Amino acid sequence: MKTEIIYGIHPVWEALQAARRNFYEIYVAEEQKISKRLEKVIARTELLNIPVKPIKRSKLHAITGTELHQGIGAKVSPHPLAKLTDIVHENSMANARRLILLLDSVVDPHNLGALTRTAVCAGLDGIIISKDRSAPLSPTVSKSSSGALEHARLVQVTNIVSTIKLLKQGGLWVVGLDRHAKESVYETDLTCALAIVIGGEDKGIRPLVKKNCDFLVSIPQRGPIDALNASVAGAIVIYEAYRQRSAKGMFNSV
Amino acid sequence: MKTEIIYGIHPVWEALQAARRNFYEIYVAEEQKISKRLEKVIARTELLNIPVKPIKRSKLHAITGTELHQGIGAKVSPHPLAKLTDIVHENSMANARRLILLLDSVVDPHNLGALTRTAVCAGLDGIIISKDRSAPLSPTVSKSSSGALEHARLVQVTNIVSTIKLLKQGGLWVVGLDRHAKESVYETDLTCALAIVIGGEDKGIRPLVKKNCDFLVSIPQRGPIDALNASVAGAIVIYEAYRQRSAKGMFNSV
Repeated sequence: MKTEIIYGIHPVWEALQAARRNFYEIYVAEEQKISKRLEKVIARTELLNIPVKPIKRSKLHAITGTELHQGIGAKVSPHPLAKLTDIVHENSMANARRLILLLDSVVDPHNLGALTRTAVCAGLDGIIISKDRSAPLSPTVSKSSSGALEHARLVQVTNIVSTIKLLKQGGLWVVGLDRHAKESVYETDLTCALAIVIGGEDKGIRPLVKKNCDFLVSIPQRGPIDALNASVAGAIVIYEAYRQRSAKGMFNSV
Repeated sequence: MKTEIIYGIHPVWEALQAARRNFYEIYVAEEQKISKRLEKVIARTELLNIPVKPIKRSKLHAITGTELHQGIGAKVSPHPLAKLTDIVHENSMANARRLILLLDSVVDPHNLGALTRTAVCAGLDGIIISKDRSAPLSPTVSKSSSGALEHARLVQVTNIVSTIKLLKQGGLWVVGLDRHAKESVYETDLTCALAIVIGGEDKGIRPLVKKNCDFLVSIPQRGPIDALNASVAGAIVIYEAYRQRSAKGMFNSV
């Protein structure tokens, strides 16, 4: 039985809310001052008959591997992955409003967490990451996402390029964010069924992945430096798609 | 003579580019593999007759207080602060295109760094922070901003509310980002002379500051959780202002 230990008030609370992981045990640091938020988490776990085990703070440091646990950890089953067919239908007509995030080589768990948080807040249909070229879906990602990971539909694929081909067959357009692209994200129609590709922290989208995108867009910049953080750049594109869709009334009938 | 030790390739390089700090000494870890980017930094410092001192990596850990130094540190003068009159003119006519960021209680240095980076990329006129209710302008902020801090015009003020009053006298509108606001940022005209107020990580903008804003806007959300990260939320508002201004042709004559 594979388990992991998630930590932090938001991750544990959101995992309880999402009810997608199995909970085996909750750990609370004995020295922890019980805040209202923490009390709420503990009350919920008791209601669900999940054993609550007080342990020394130093022990909680050790089993979570961090000091950022806010006094709480939970032994749970791994993050439940989605399948590609959960977020993209085989019948392309059903994909008309789809908005998906595809991450190519985002290896920093904090960026992966931040992008997941934004994608969940904006109500995206799913997030696709590469099995080998991504930060692993660790408890750090859940913490960095402020627990949003617990609600996210995340799909791991072995090959980004062949996945892009499948998305295209499903009727989606594939737009890559590339700082050297001539077309601005603000001049691009993002209301079609769409997958947004965000590249890694250092080098952006890999050349072969880029070649398979339908179009590339950049975020205009005016300052003396021209490198937005990957999670900020991703958020700007996600929310530009949101703005365009909202302006078109696409959310009214949902 | 007050000094501090900035670290990381981007911060040291951008500080050299911006030429606003005094450089006293550069430290390079003896064990460091000299990459092309690092070589470029060293070549520049030699050109400027700044002494380069090889030191043990463990010593560099100790003097920078972190392991994220990428093998380089620099003893420099503190970040040169701007004055309020550097970014907002007393003659309100001259303020017509101003776009300023005002941070109320952003205490996480990584969020402060990330917001600074976005503000610099978008070409904002300046950033105002509170002297007592902000993360200090430490080398951590420069690192988190990927060196953007070195180019930023940052003003520290003692009182945010009285600063807002001064901004209003200067002809600026003051918009606060508040997740409970009814008006969406996308339904709001952000092309006027504007200060955007972003609140702290936990509680947002303080009540009295909020009361002094001309209007409050929120970022619409559709997901099961509704809390964007402060630096992501700030970036979305900054770039929505950018989009509206660009669409109106406001950058053409600059």
